[in-house]
Amino acid sequence: MRMPLAPLFSPPYFAVIFTSLRTEGDADYGAMAERMEELAREQSGYLGIDSARSEAGITVSYWRDLESVRSWKQQWEHRDAQRQGREKWYEAYTVRVCRVEHEYDFAK
Amino acid sequence: MRMPLAPLFSPPYFAVIFTSLRTEGDADYGAMAERMEELAREQSGYLGIDSARSEAGITVSYWRDLESVRSWKQQWEHRDAQRQGREKWYEAYTVRVCRVEHEYDFAK
Repeated sequence: MRMPLAPLFSPPYFAVIFTSLRTEGDADYGAMAERMEELAREQSGYLGIDSARSEAGITVSYWRDLESVRSWKQQWEHRDAQRQGREKWYEAYTVRVCRVEHEYDFAK
Repeated sequence: MRMPLAPLFSPPYFAVIFTSLRTEGDADYGAMAERMEELAREQSGYLGIDSARSEAGITVSYWRDLESVRSWKQQWEHRDAQRQGREKWYEAYTVRVCRVEHEYDFAK
């Protein structure tokens, strides 16, 4: 079964676009990524997530408001993952916090 | 050589988050996707693009202002690709137009 796309959530809400280039090797990256998705889902204000990886990785998480974006960034287990990410998992990453203003979708 | 991540562009600017689930088979999808990236780069207000595909595909394109986002959506060759996308390439997709408010990055 493949993951469905995150549905639309009615703007305004917030999207955090995380793009990354991985280092070589796994170094428990897979387990951490899975745990972070699970943990994100438990946070106040969490709406959904979309994720894909080929040459680059892109994860977009969706949040009700900026306060929930900030709380997630500061969550202690997530902070530890961020620190380990800079040490061993990522060559480079970017984070963009965005206000979703307009959205539409299509399904067959 | 792998594509680098799109760099930061100094907010405010706009991100268009396109997530998709593909149909089975290629049906010239690869050629179209490559052509659309090339065409996007030629548009006024274009800043950059990040793209990844595994189960889902995520393409984020970055634009100077909402006018350039709208012009790109209306560009004739892009409109034709959108129509063909609904007919044959995509099971489902979502489009979110967002204002980037805050950004940071990391590189080793």
